[in-house]
Amino acid sequence: MSLATVSEGAQHAQPRIRTLAVIGVGLIGGSFAAACRKAGIVDRVIGAGRRPETLSQAVALGLIDEAVTLEAAAKQADLIFIAAPVGAFESIFTALAPCLNASTLITDGGSTKQNVIEAARRGLKERISQFVPAHPMAGSHETGPQAADAGLYAGRRVILTPLAENHEQDVLHIQAIWESCGARVVRLEPAQHDGMVAAVSHLPHWVAALYMQHILSSVDTTLKLQTAGTGFKDFTRVAQGSPEMWTDIFMANREAMLHELKDFRQILDRAEQALESGDEKWLTTMLEVAAKARAEWPGTQW
Amino acid sequence: MSLATVSEGAQHAQPRIRTLAVIGVGLIGGSFAAACRKAGIVDRVIGAGRRPETLSQAVALGLIDEAVTLEAAAKQADLIFIAAPVGAFESIFTALAPCLNASTLITDGGSTKQNVIEAARRGLKERISQFVPAHPMAGSHETGPQAADAGLYAGRRVILTPLAENHEQDVLHIQAIWESCGARVVRLEPAQHDGMVAAVSHLPHWVAALYMQHILSSVDTTLKLQTAGTGFKDFTRVAQGSPEMWTDIFMANREAMLHELKDFRQILDRAEQALESGDEKWLTTMLEVAAKARAEWPGTQW
Repeated sequence: MSLATVSEGAQHAQPRIRTLAVIGVGLIGGSFAAACRKAGIVDRVIGAGRRPETLSQAVALGLIDEAVTLEAAAKQADLIFIAAPVGAFESIFTALAPCLNASTLITDGGSTKQNVIEAARRGLKERISQFVPAHPMAGSHETGPQAADAGLYAGRRVILTPLAENHEQDVLHIQAIWESCGARVVRLEPAQHDGMVAAVSHLPHWVAALYMQHILSSVDTTLKLQTAGTGFKDFTRVAQGSPEMWTDIFMANREAMLHELKDFRQILDRAEQALESGDEKWLTTMLEVAAKARAEWPGTQW
Repeated sequence: MSLATVSEGAQHAQPRIRTLAVIGVGLIGGSFAAACRKAGIVDRVIGAGRRPETLSQAVALGLIDEAVTLEAAAKQADLIFIAAPVGAFESIFTALAPCLNASTLITDGGSTKQNVIEAARRGLKERISQFVPAHPMAGSHETGPQAADAGLYAGRRVILTPLAENHEQDVLHIQAIWESCGARVVRLEPAQHDGMVAAVSHLPHWVAALYMQHILSSVDTTLKLQTAGTGFKDFTRVAQGSPEMWTDIFMANREAMLHELKDFRQILDRAEQALESGDEKWLTTMLEVAAKARAEWPGTQW
C-alpha cells in the first residue's frame, strides 16, 4: 500500500502477516493470535513469555505454532504484539531492539499509553518509529491462554495513539489488522487516552476495591455481606480483577489517576456538605442529572 | 395463636388478613398486595395514596379492590402496610392514629428505620405498640402499580426492627405474613439496620451518582461515555434510581450516611497516599483483599 492510495477506503484492504510474534500469550495476546488466524490474515504465529508452562499451553491450544525467545521473535516476526504487564514493557523493548528487522512493526495491548511510549523510547531508541501504540478496550475476568477467544475484539474499540515518528502507512496497516479482528479503531493523543481510561475504567476499579475494603474493615461485616443485594453486586463486580494487573495499571497511570482522584474528591466533598446541611434541592438536582445521564447512556456505541 | 405456643415452628402457621390497607400502591405496596393475594391470606385489599390516577390504575390492575381515604383505611383494615416515601410517613401516621382500631397492626416498607420509628412515635403516640417496623430488601428500577409483582419478595430478606412496645405475637404475625409472601425474615436493631443499609445500599448509590456527576463535569465527557464499557455499566447501574426517592432516603438516613462517608474517606485518603508515594505493596495487598472478598461473596444467602 503506497501513501498515495491511502484513503478512508484503504483501511478495508486485507492486511497480511507472514509471522506474528505474540509476547505474553494470555487472554489479550492469545485472543489477538486467535482473531488473526480466524481472519485468515496470518501465516505463522510464534510466542514468547516469562512462563514456559503458559507457552506450552498456548501451543497445545493451537494459539501459537512455536514458543521462542524474545530475540528469535524479533528476528522472525514482521509483526510483534506485546501483551505483557505494562511494568515489563521496557525490558521487552530493550530485548527486542537489537534483533529487530527494519520492516518489522510492533504494537501492544497495554492499558496505558504515555508510560508505554516512554518505555518504548528508552528501549527501542532510534527504532521508535516501528512502534504503533494500541489499546484494545476488551477484557474478561478470566486470564491465561485457555481464556483466549477469537471473538474477544469483535465490535470492541481499539484506540491507537500514533507517534510523530510513525509512518502513516504503518499506522493504517495496524488499523487494518485490528479491523480484520472485528475491532473499531479510534485514534487519540496518548495523554487523552490515559485521562479517558483513568476516568471510565481505572477510577471505578479503584473505588469499588476501596469500597470492598471499607465494608471489610467496618462493624457487622458478615451481616452486611449477607444482606447485600444486586446494587452491591454490580457496584463491586470490577473489584474482582487481578490484583497484580491492577497495581501495574494504577502505577502506570498514576498521574492521570491522581488527577481524577483530586477532581472526584471535590465532588464528594461538595455532596457531603449538601447532605450535612440538609440541602435537599442540591441533592435532588445532582441525582436527577446522574440518573438522566445514566439512563440515556446508550452503552458502547463506536 | 397464644404466646404459650410461640416457637420456631409457629412462624409457619398460615396468617389471615381480613382487610389489608396499602398506603402507596406503587412497586413495593402493589407487590405486597399481590403477594398476599397470591398466598391466599387476604380477603380484601383497600388502597390509599396521594395520586387518584395511581389508585385507579391499582384498582384496574386488580391489586386493590377499592380506593379509600387514609381515615377509611384506618377504620376498615386489620393490617396497614405503608409504602410511601419515608418523608411522608409522619403525616400518614398522624392521619391514621385517631381512626385506628385497637387490634389493627401497621407495618411498612421504608428503607430506613430510626427516622420512621421517630415519625411513628410522633404520629401514633400511645398507639405506637401497633407499629411493627419492617424493610423488605427488594426493589426494581421500575416504579408504579404496573411494576407490581406478586413474586417480588420471594427469597428476599425482610428486616424487622421491633420496638420495645411491640407484643411478641404481633411481631410473629407480621413475620408470618412476610413469610407467606416468600420472604426470609431477620430481626435487627433499628440503628444496626440503618448502618447496614447505609453501607451496602446507600453508599454505593451515593458514590455511583457522584461518579456520573464527575464524568459529566470533566473534559472529554462525550469521548468517555462513548468509550466506557462493561465496568462502567455495572458500576453506575444503581445511579439510575428515582432522584426523589433517593433524596428522601439520603435525608432520612443522614446520620448513618455521614458516618459511612467519614470512614470511607479515610480509606480513600490512605489509598491515595499509597498511590502518590508509589507504595505498590500496599496497593497489591489492598487489591488482593478486595478481589478475594468479592470473589468469595456468595451473593444473597439468607
